[in-house]
Amino acid sequence: MTGPSSISINIPVTNKPRIVIVGGGFGGIQLAKRLKGEDVQVVMIDKNNYHTFQPLLYQVATAGLEPDSIAYPLRKIFKKQENFIFRMAEAIKVDPARKVLETSIGEIPYDFLVLATGSVTNFYGMRDMERNAMPMKSVPQSLDLRSLILQNLEAALLTTDLKNLEGLLTFVVVGGGPTGVETAGALGELKNHILPLDYPELDIKKMRIHVVDHGPRLLQGMSPSASQKAEEFLRKFEVEIWLNTGVVAYDGTTLSLSNGKTLLTKAVIWAAGVAGAVLPGLRAESVTNGRRLKVDAFSRVEGYENIFAIGDLACMVTKDSPQGHSLLAPVAMQQGKWLAQNLGRLLRKQPLRPFHYLNLGVMATIGRNQAVADLPLVKVQGVLGWFLWVFIHLMTLVGFRNRMVTFVNWVFSYLSYDKGIRLIIRPFKRGQSPVDR
Amino acid sequence: MTGPSSISINIPVTNKPRIVIVGGGFGGIQLAKRLKGEDVQVVMIDKNNYHTFQPLLYQVATAGLEPDSIAYPLRKIFKKQENFIFRMAEAIKVDPARKVLETSIGEIPYDFLVLATGSVTNFYGMRDMERNAMPMKSVPQSLDLRSLILQNLEAALLTTDLKNLEGLLTFVVVGGGPTGVETAGALGELKNHILPLDYPELDIKKMRIHVVDHGPRLLQGMSPSASQKAEEFLRKFEVEIWLNTGVVAYDGTTLSLSNGKTLLTKAVIWAAGVAGAVLPGLRAESVTNGRRLKVDAFSRVEGYENIFAIGDLACMVTKDSPQGHSLLAPVAMQQGKWLAQNLGRLLRKQPLRPFHYLNLGVMATIGRNQAVADLPLVKVQGVLGWFLWVFIHLMTLVGFRNRMVTFVNWVFSYLSYDKGIRLIIRPFKRGQSPVDR
Repeated sequence: MTGPSSISINIPVTNKPRIVIVGGGFGGIQLAKRLKGEDVQVVMIDKNNYHTFQPLLYQVATAGLEPDSIAYPLRKIFKKQENFIFRMAEAIKVDPARKVLETSIGEIPYDFLVLATGSVTNFYGMRDMERNAMPMKSVPQSLDLRSLILQNLEAALLTTDLKNLEGLLTFVVVGGGPTGVETAGALGELKNHILPLDYPELDIKKMRIHVVDHGPRLLQGMSPSASQKAEEFLRKFEVEIWLNTGVVAYDGTTLSLSNGKTLLTKAVIWAAGVAGAVLPGLRAESVTNGRRLKVDAFSRVEGYENIFAIGDLACMVTKDSPQGHSLLAPVAMQQGKWLAQNLGRLLRKQPLRPFHYLNLGVMATIGRNQAVADLPLVKVQGVLGWFLWVFIHLMTLVGFRNRMVTFVNWVFSYLSYDKGIRLIIRPFKRGQSPVDR
Repeated sequence: MTGPSSISINIPVTNKPRIVIVGGGFGGIQLAKRLKGEDVQVVMIDKNNYHTFQPLLYQVATAGLEPDSIAYPLRKIFKKQENFIFRMAEAIKVDPARKVLETSIGEIPYDFLVLATGSVTNFYGMRDMERNAMPMKSVPQSLDLRSLILQNLEAALLTTDLKNLEGLLTFVVVGGGPTGVETAGALGELKNHILPLDYPELDIKKMRIHVVDHGPRLLQGMSPSASQKAEEFLRKFEVEIWLNTGVVAYDGTTLSLSNGKTLLTKAVIWAAGVAGAVLPGLRAESVTNGRRLKVDAFSRVEGYENIFAIGDLACMVTKDSPQGHSLLAPVAMQQGKWLAQNLGRLLRKQPLRPFHYLNLGVMATIGRNQAVADLPLVKVQGVLGWFLWVFIHLMTLVGFRNRMVTFVNWVFSYLSYDKGIRLIIRPFKRGQSPVDR
C-alpha cells in the first residue's frame, strides 16, 4: 500500500452525482438496487466481497449451515446494474469538509455518502471478555466458534481431570435476545440428537448449556408470552437460564456471574449486545446512545446535508420508537428502499418524505419444531411458528442458489435429526483477537 | 501439552488386539469399515476430524463447491461401529521396537500398525516454490487458493500499472496430470462464463491461463488419445500449454521456465507432484522412490512383521505395476478392503492372500460437458465422458447428504453457467508457509 490517493482506486469520474454506500448489508443492498434507474454513479464498498445473512450466523457456528448458504457475493447481486461499482475495501474515515471517504484502497470523493456499516459486537469495555469470549457477528467468527465447540469435545475425550472436563463440556451463552436464544437452542439440538452418536465414549449428559441475561426475561424485544414460551422450549433441552444476572469476569476458564456464582467453562458465546459501527471523522454530537448516529426522518445524519445513515447504525427517533428502531433486518431493508426514493427526490429537487416503518413482526426459533413469532396481528408459537420461521428465512435469503442449498440442508436435518457439517476446517487458537478473525 | 504419555490419550485397554490406523483417507476408511466384524480394537487417528475427498479439492479452490460437499466427519462414518475409536491427533513418530505410535496427544501402543497417511505436496527441494506457489492437497489450502484468485481479481481493478495487471491476471498451473488439467479447465470456465459478469470493468481477455509440464504430453498416466483430447479441450478455453518444460524459479511475481521464457504471474498453482507422507522412525531401507514405503503383496512394510502401509504411501511392486500402483483413490480403497481381510486371516492364523488390483479406469474432466475417461474396455471422451465423471464422483462421495448438496450445486452450475461460491472468507496473506495453512 503506497498510501491513500484518489487515483489508485481507479473509479471512473463521470459528471453524474456519485453516491457512495459504505456496507453491503440488508440496508446497503436495498438502497443500491433501488437506485438502478437513477442517473447517478453508485459506489459501494465493503470489507468483504459478500453479503452476510446475519440472522443465520448462529447456524454456521453450530454446524448447521455452511458459509455459502448465508453469504452471497455482492458482485453477483449487482451484475447487471450499469450505474453500480463495487470495491472491496475497508472504510477508514469520513472527511465531510472535503466530501471524501478515506478507505484502505485510497480516497473516494462523494456527492452523497450513505453509512450502512451496521453494528459491531459490544463488550461494554470488559477487556477479558473481548479477549476470551467468542463473538458471532461475522462468518469467520462463526467458523471459529464452530471449531472451538468441536475442539472442546475432542479435548474432552482426552482428559481424566474432572474440572477440566466440566470446563470443556460447559457452554455459556451471554445474552438472552434472539441470537442468544437461537444459539442455545441449536446447542441443545446438538446435545440431544447428534453428539451422543458422534461421541459414544463421552457421557454427554455432562454437557451443560447456560444462558445468562441481565434482564428479567428472555427476548425482551418480544411479547411476555413469547418470552415464557422460549424459556419453556429451552428448558426442554435442559438449558439453565440465569435472569437478572450479569457477567463480571472471565479468564478463559472461570466465568464469574453478578450473583456470586461461578461457572467453569471454556466456551463463552457473546450475544450480549452490539454498538453502531461509527466511522471516525463525524461530529461527536451526532453520536447517540448505543454508538448510533442521530438521523432525521429522511435518514440524514444530524449536522450534515449529504451524509445519511440507515439500518443498525442509524438512530431515528419517532413517535413509535422513541429509542430509535430495533436492530432488525426489515428495518434496514425498508430504510434502504425509502432512502433510494428520497435521494431520487433530492436530485429532482422534490420534497422528501419521512420514513415510516411497516412492522412485520419478530421471531426466534429454538431448535426443531419450536419457534415464537410476534406478528402484527397474531402471536404464533410452536410448530406453526417454526414452519413460518423456516419459510420466511428461506424467502429472505438472497439468491436462488442459497435458498436451494439451505433448503436441502434443512430438509435433510429435519428428516434425519442430523447436521452435516461438523468440520474443524481451521482450528481455533485462543489468543487471536476477535479483530483478526 | 504435558508431553506424551500413554495415559493422556484415554483409550480403554482391552485384551483384544489393537489395530492402529494412521489416516482417514480412502484406504484407512475402507480398512476400518471392513474390520467391523473382527474381534479387535480399531483406533484411527487423523489430524483432521474429517475425511477429504481429494479428487474434488480443485472445485473448492475454483469456487465450485464448499468444503462440506467434499469433507465428511470421520466420527459420523463410524458412528455405529462399536470396535472403533477415533482420536483427532497428529502422528509424530513410529517406535517399532516398543510397538508404540507417538502422537500429538500421547503415545498409542499397537499390536498392528497401518500407515495410511497418503501423500504430501512435493516441491522437489525448490524453496522459492514452496514459499510462493499454492499447493492444493488440503481443504484449507484450497480455500486459500480460492481467496487468492478472487483477491487478485479485486486487486486488478485497482491498478493502472500494466505489468502489475498482467501478473494479477495470469494463472499458471504447474503439472499436467489430472489435478492440473482439471484445475486449468475450471479456471477456463470461470474466465468464460462467470468473471465477465462479475467484473464488467475488467478486460477479462487479459486473463491468461497456462499449464506447464515437463513431460511430452498432458495426462501421462492415461492413453495418448485422452492426452490429445484434453489438450484440445483446454485450447478451447485458450489455455496455453507448455510441454517438455520445467519451472526454474519463482519469486512471487516472475516465474522462470526451463525454456528461457518468463511469465509474470501472482498465482502459481502447484500440481506438479507428491511424495509419500512417511513418518520418522522407520528403517531408511524401507523407503523407496517417491518417498513411498516398500510393501509386499500383503501390504506389509519391508522389514516389519506388524506394520502395514496402503494407498499413496505404499509402493507395492507387481508384474502389472513395476513402479508400484498409481496414486489413485480406487487403489487405496481396494488395498484397505483387502488388508482388512488379510488381518482377519492373520488373527485366525490362516494364510494371507496377495493383493490384486482391479483396474476401474482413470478419468479427468475439463470444464462443462468435457471429460476424458480410459475405462478397462473402452475410451470415452466428450459429453458422455463428462456425465460418466459426474455420476461416478457423486456415487463415490461419502454420505447421502454430501451427494445431495454436491448434486444441487452441480445441477445449478450446469443450468445457469454459474458457480455460487465466490467468497473470500479468510483473505490469504502471502508469507504463510503451506505447513501453517
